[in-house]
Amino acid sequence: PETDVDRKFKLSQTIASPIGHVISPFLTKSGTPHQPGQMDTTSTIKLSQGSTGKAIKQRWMPKDALEGLEEYSHCWIVFHFHLNDPESNGKKSKVSPPRGGGTKVGIFASRAPYRPSPIGLSLVEIASVNHDKGELIVKNCDLVHETPVLDIKPYIPDYDKPDDDKEVKVATWLEEKNSKNSEIKGISFTSRADLKIQELFSVTEYDSAETLKSAITKMLMNDPRSIYRKTQLEKGEKNKLFFLNFSNLTVTVWFDGDYAEVLKVEPYYEHKKG
Amino acid sequence: PETDVDRKFKLSQTIASPIGHVISPFLTKSGTPHQPGQMDTTSTIKLSQGSTGKAIKQRWMPKDALEGLEEYSHCWIVFHFHLNDPESNGKKSKVSPPRGGGTKVGIFASRAPYRPSPIGLSLVEIASVNHDKGELIVKNCDLVHETPVLDIKPYIPDYDKPDDDKEVKVATWLEEKNSKNSEIKGISFTSRADLKIQELFSVTEYDSAETLKSAITKMLMNDPRSIYRKTQLEKGEKNKLFFLNFSNLTVTVWFDGDYAEVLKVEPYYEHKKG
Repeated sequence: PETDVDRKFKLSQTIASPIGHVISPFLTKSGTPHQPGQMDTTSTIKLSQGSTGKAIKQRWMPKDALEGLEEYSHCWIVFHFHLNDPESNGKKSKVSPPRGGGTKVGIFASRAPYRPSPIGLSLVEIASVNHDKGELIVKNCDLVHETPVLDIKPYIPDYDKPDDDKEVKVATWLEEKNSKNSEIKGISFTSRADLKIQELFSVTEYDSAETLKSAITKMLMNDPRSIYRKTQLEKGEKNKLFFLNFSNLTVTVWFDGDYAEVLKVEPYYEHKKG
Repeated sequence: PETDVDRKFKLSQTIASPIGHVISPFLTKSGTPHQPGQMDTTSTIKLSQGSTGKAIKQRWMPKDALEGLEEYSHCWIVFHFHLNDPESNGKKSKVSPPRGGGTKVGIFASRAPYRPSPIGLSLVEIASVNHDKGELIVKNCDLVHETPVLDIKPYIPDYDKPDDDKEVKVATWLEEKNSKNSEIKGISFTSRADLKIQELFSVTEYDSAETLKSAITKMLMNDPRSIYRKTQLEKGEKNKLFFLNFSNLTVTVWFDGDYAEVLKVEPYYEHKKG
């Protein structure tokens, strides 16, 4: 017989309805940063314009739901890790997080995307709200293009920040990796890549070759590779190149120890064809 | 025909599976604080011990999923606002938040519980982890007893705090209410209530009448009433008493302007019977 708690828990399984999705320069998982950091990127959260009562319960989200959000400097994006394979979701209770250098920790001691409930949380800076279009424009968003957004909540220090007089502790493996993580010490661009940046910046949202180059540099400084990729490299897969699919471009990068060389810049669709 | 985005959005609707639930001194919505504040309360997040493959997809959550969590001082509880009436969930795009004094704002400019995806976010302090029992013991948790927990994520300042050099702005109505909210200036206990506290503290988790009294005082200082209740009062419903269902007790309170008088303290079940 169904108990009261059973009934409640069943309800809990159908609660998440996307209210919109992300329009982002990060076109694929490859190259998308593991932490927002200090990227010079802008993304848009577009409220869904579908209608209630369709087969998929994609909500019609009235634009006035965003009213007043411009009064805050920051907000949370609650999102679905939609690129996870549902089959692998939350099957493991322990994981090796990207910054952990191989350390295995319980899933709840990490922010790894493969979780029992694949709900992500991302703090972003509010750039502006386009009330006419039902769009929220944000800075430093680390979400892949088309990520379904489940909720937007204003950042309120009273709720979301530990008391100033309380010591904040994080796992030692995270602190150690903080330094280890910024281990990319030099980045250069081949002259062929340089030329292509001159030629292609106009298809991106950057207004000059310099700003585009600086954005790519910042992304590489943060080392967007997964721990898996790095481990493979250490195991001897030195011949594998890394692709950054970003802002309508594919950037081919060679990581050599603490050094990154940008080898090629091409339109994203050409890379897909090739 | 189903598009790719349709398919993804459909997947997004079934992602949330409770991983456990909260054991909390807040027995009902009435009296549960709207913000964690500085309560002297302790709650437990108990991992679900069900098994996969049951009719309800309540997960079996291996206890080692909590491993390493004790290295952090704070974590997020991602939870389901399970006491919401699903019929009223997210039907409104604008709301009057508890601290807003009647101001109407877009749902995404507030932290109101009635949301399109009724997912809540609560920052708590980690007191300890009981690895044997699969339990996380936390301080300052503002969640109602039996709240289904969807996820636990460590608090990592790098991800979850705006840059120190960025100005953090919140809505003016929130700032104004910050002062207005602490408008309860005096709290007293009738001698009858005082006597009952002496008699009943042993059924609570407090170890003396003084600590229990101090916890009740703190909760009342934070004014746990909803904006609806306050508005009704201003409209003339001066005869309505307020009940705090807390730590196996029901506390009957009379709010008179900026003054609160604790009239009665009794076991929770006696109040239910009466």
